[in-house]
Amino acid sequence: MSEENLIRVAVPELDAVLGHPFKVFDDGFVRVVDYMGNDQSIVQAARVSYGIGTKKVSEDRGLIRYLMRHRHTTPFEMAEIKFHVRVPMDTWRQWIRHRTANVNEYSTRYSIAIDNAQKTPKNKWRTQSQLNKQGSDEFFTKEEGAEFSRQEEELQKHARQVYEQRIEKGMSREQARKDLPLSTYTEAYWKTDLHNLLHFLSLRMDQRAQWEIRQYANAIGNEIVSKWVPMTWEAFLDYRINSITLSGPETEMIKSRGTFNNFDTDDLNNYRGFGFVKEKKEELNREGEELREKLKGLKN
Amino acid sequence: MSEENLIRVAVPELDAVLGHPFKVFDDGFVRVVDYMGNDQSIVQAARVSYGIGTKKVSEDRGLIRYLMRHRHTTPFEMAEIKFHVRVPMDTWRQWIRHRTANVNEYSTRYSIAIDNAQKTPKNKWRTQSQLNKQGSDEFFTKEEGAEFSRQEEELQKHARQVYEQRIEKGMSREQARKDLPLSTYTEAYWKTDLHNLLHFLSLRMDQRAQWEIRQYANAIGNEIVSKWVPMTWEAFLDYRINSITLSGPETEMIKSRGTFNNFDTDDLNNYRGFGFVKEKKEELNREGEELREKLKGLKN
Amino acid sequence: MSEENLIRVAVPELDAVLGHPFKVFDDGFVRVVDYMGNDQSIVQAARVSYGIGTKKVSEDRGLIRYLMRHRHTTPFEMAEIKFHVRVPMDTWRQWIRHRTANVNEYSTRYSIAIDNAQKTPKNKWRTQSQLNKQGSDEFFTKEEGAEFSRQEEELQKHARQVYEQRIEKGMSREQARKDLPLSTYTEAYWKTDLHNLLHFLSLRMDQRAQWEIRQYANAIGNEIVSKWVPMTWEAFLDYRINSITLSGPETEMIKSRGTFNNFDTDDLNNYRGFGFVKEKKEELNREGEELREKLKGLKN
Amino acid sequence: MSEENLIRVAVPELDAVLGHPFKVFDDGFVRVVDYMGNDQSIVQAARVSYGIGTKKVSEDRGLIRYLMRHRHTTPFEMAEIKFHVRVPMDTWRQWIRHRTANVNEYSTRYSIAIDNAQKTPKNKWRTQSQLNKQGSDEFFTKEEGAEFSRQEEELQKHARQVYEQRIEKGMSREQARKDLPLSTYTEAYWKTDLHNLLHFLSLRMDQRAQWEIRQYANAIGNEIVSKWVPMTWEAFLDYRINSITLSGPETEMIKSRGTFNNFDTDDLNNYRGFGFVKEKKEELNREGEELREKLKGLKN
Repeated sequence: MSEENLIRVAVPELDAVLGHPFKVFDDGFVRVVDYMGNDQSIVQAARVSYGIGTKKVSEDRGLIRYLMRHRHTTPFEMAEIKFHVRVPMDTWRQWIRHRTANVNEYSTRYSIAIDNAQKTPKNKWRTQSQLNKQGSDEFFTKEEGAEFSRQEEELQKHARQVYEQRIEKGMSREQARKDLPLSTYTEAYWKTDLHNLLHFLSLRMDQRAQWEIRQYANAIGNEIVSKWVPMTWEAFLDYRINSITLSGPETEMIKSRGTFNNFDTDDLNNYRGFGFVKEKKEELNREGEELREKLKGLKN
Repeated sequence: MSEENLIRVAVPELDAVLGHPFKVFDDGFVRVVDYMGNDQSIVQAARVSYGIGTKKVSEDRGLIRYLMRHRHTTPFEMAEIKFHVRVPMDTWRQWIRHRTANVNEYSTRYSIAIDNAQKTPKNKWRTQSQLNKQGSDEFFTKEEGAEFSRQEEELQKHARQVYEQRIEKGMSREQARKDLPLSTYTEAYWKTDLHNLLHFLSLRMDQRAQWEIRQYANAIGNEIVSKWVPMTWEAFLDYRINSITLSGPETEMIKSRGTFNNFDTDDLNNYRGFGFVKEKKEELNREGEELREKLKGLKN
Repeated sequence: MSEENLIRVAVPELDAVLGHPFKVFDDGFVRVVDYMGNDQSIVQAARVSYGIGTKKVSEDRGLIRYLMRHRHTTPFEMAEIKFHVRVPMDTWRQWIRHRTANVNEYSTRYSIAIDNAQKTPKNKWRTQSQLNKQGSDEFFTKEEGAEFSRQEEELQKHARQVYEQRIEKGMSREQARKDLPLSTYTEAYWKTDLHNLLHFLSLRMDQRAQWEIRQYANAIGNEIVSKWVPMTWEAFLDYRINSITLSGPETEMIKSRGTFNNFDTDDLNNYRGFGFVKEKKEELNREGEELREKLKGLKN
Repeated sequence: MSEENLIRVAVPELDAVLGHPFKVFDDGFVRVVDYMGNDQSIVQAARVSYGIGTKKVSEDRGLIRYLMRHRHTTPFEMAEIKFHVRVPMDTWRQWIRHRTANVNEYSTRYSIAIDNAQKTPKNKWRTQSQLNKQGSDEFFTKEEGAEFSRQEEELQKHARQVYEQRIEKGMSREQARKDLPLSTYTEAYWKTDLHNLLHFLSLRMDQRAQWEIRQYANAIGNEIVSKWVPMTWEAFLDYRINSITLSGPETEMIKSRGTFNNFDTDDLNNYRGFGFVKEKKEELNREGEELREKLKGLKN
């Protein structure tokens, strides 16, 4: 840990979008307010373990990939970023469940609630997924959607009127807000380290995450993190987003079958004996269905 | 750390209310589901530091008071408790800001939202505090309150109708919920260690906390923690809830005045020279006003 | 979340070993002091999300496996356990790096340091691994080992003498301890939730973890967690310990090769074009070598 | 939250010492590697709650003092700092107990241990405090100290020889290190937010903290934090370091006595009836003694 020239590093690609609000929905956004560190800071932190100075850039990529692959997470904690976000409370309720960040949210005890609620366009109302109990499926027709949007506007207007009447009559702000719709916008500063940010992104960029929060996660990942720490971002995509994990029993099944590329992934017999077939019914259980999808993903 | 008989301790006083829902508002509650440790576990953890066995009970109280007084917080982390709560989302939004707990909340992506929203009784609507920008003051008259309650019921009904129509027409639950009012009830398991629970209580039992969350904090503190760890609870009241902190400048002023019991706490001259008087106007600044309240609290 | 009979659950299999010290090395141990929750508490916490009561046991296993597979970690945080451990400071230095636990360690400021240091038996001295810069390889001969053990005993004795002379002459304990060897035993209470415990075990049961801390991790996992939450333990072994993760590029390579079961895993040509072969030298890079091992693991 | 000019702020006073190693002991140091935010970022974060733009600087000080006084801690989490430290393992063992920081420590598994151990000068050996079981008292004479220093050098030399012989003979580094003295230097990157840093400083700058870690805390506080966030530093000194807290019973006693400035703080009778006098012996208990010290501190 002799000489150091990695003091207070800057990233020109990120500096170019500092403060810029990336739009989400009709009135939401996310923007970078400040940051600390870059790809090289991560390398620097990892190398303190090895007692050697920072070496040539070409090796940095390999080291970052190694760290990501083996879940050596502490070096990624050495980079930090602070966002300013504007987001519907409904989405914020999910966001805030990530406990490892620092947060300052707009206070509707102190101030008048933001006079805007997120409105779903008529072509964006989604039906309940039948396969995934907590997911959405396809879109309603524009006709159906138009009616939903009309109803929503009416309800949001009603709720706002009640809120404003309460305020006008002198009701405390902390109580007046109690019937605002979850779609009401809020704002916050949100600061986190890179390791925890990537964990947030791996969960919230996922197909199973709700569409709304995915829009924020995608903006953060694709527009911001990719510019800030490009080597880390590449490794994250390779090892987290685009990876496949095979469990112990799955590995055993593949080994025992001799080859999985040749076999019919739809043939139930290929899955027997490892816990992937329902005992009573002649069909794959949930774990078996997920395996079938993985095997299809491995076939050309 | 020789012999130990503090294995898997039980607290009969707490066992007596295990699972019992302490009611809050019209339909909220908090109840204990499980716990780990008691006053003696805290003592045991503190004494590991001292390499001596658990001694007589009479000394436990003194040790717990010492730990609380000097903010030796780690022994209090050795006790853990798990609650099941039912609470309006508006209050839950404040609750969840305490990041050091473990949480599992009822999912309105997976299930139909709880069909109830917290209704404010006609005699409980509060006016905006003029002194405290984020507080409440007195109650509206029953006549005014009756009108607020009528409006609230109408709005909550409207919002529920929209929600149920969406569900009926096959909209995804995750999207249908977006315009529910913040007053809608949710439920959660909430698990935390005693140190972090006391920190939560010190903030949420405070007069400056919103009235609603104070009801939950009071139920947890007075009905549950007081039974679970009575020595810790007593120390907490003495050193956190009922204590007064004097800053460096405040201490200096008191010393310089010779005595504060005799002097007139309303005489501006007693406060000069230590930063408590506004430069331009002849009156106490905010810090000075708070000091005056403290001094009054010290006078008989 | 209607009826609940999961209040303050007990696990007879774990109760049977409560307080029992599982020995590690010459004088170390780990034992359970208290715990909260079991497999069913995890299920209960997960189901609060689904708004349905606890169902038949046969489905619990499937749900726990689902949670583990998809890294839904919060339900596992609902179970908590407290250990009493005796461990060399050198090992404790690694252990304590896991920040999500509650800790009370024996204080050598307050008390005389434990009069024992971990002694390596003559047949357990390990050579430096040439492949893994931070690992060990094989054992030294007993003759070489005997000399190392003799030297160690001499050094530990010397250090203890200096320590005891300092204490005898009235030196403060906090200063007298400064030259104690890292092999000196310490004790602590260590309390953590199940999710974080499994994370600890996944890192510390791993072959790349140092042999010493692995002994503690193995004792905790195999002797304690397996008894406490058997369904969770099975899922953990299947999805964490015995699983294989294939990165995006690795998946692409496998797909492009048509089959990997038939091909020669030692043939460099099979790896070209996906970043697994060194640019200049004709050999696999580190990532490629790891892939080769994985592919061998998938072949019968 | 309209206009913002607080994007990626810099603090010239801190920039002037960036990377500069502040020396501690014979070979230790602490230096700043990077930071995020300043006093104004804290104000900015606090004001998001109030929905108003950043106002004139003269009000910032008042707001920061208000936040510190009322333990509104989240705005202080919006500033972050990263240090590079060199510290004896014995001191590091205390340091690392603060769990809310990000850490990368020099690895003696991967690299040869740093060839230096902290040596106590002959005039710095301290006797055991009789009053404080975990503290030090006065210094040994230079003659006694010289002998301690001679012994220490001999022991450290012996330990290093054993270590180097092991390495020379090919022993794994991870095992060779096991008998190194706790005085051996280590290095680390240590990154934390300002709120947690102030908590660290309040505990480690305290008189009851061990002298060694106090040297680091003092360097960080006086040389670094004071330059970085001068308004916060002033408030921290006033409200944390130089403050006095009076418990409920202490407040009651003071009120009942009418005045404490006039009374004899050594007269036992003044303390009776509030739990400050031992039941059997005619003397103050520990809590009473601490109160007497506080009362003396309030008298001129």
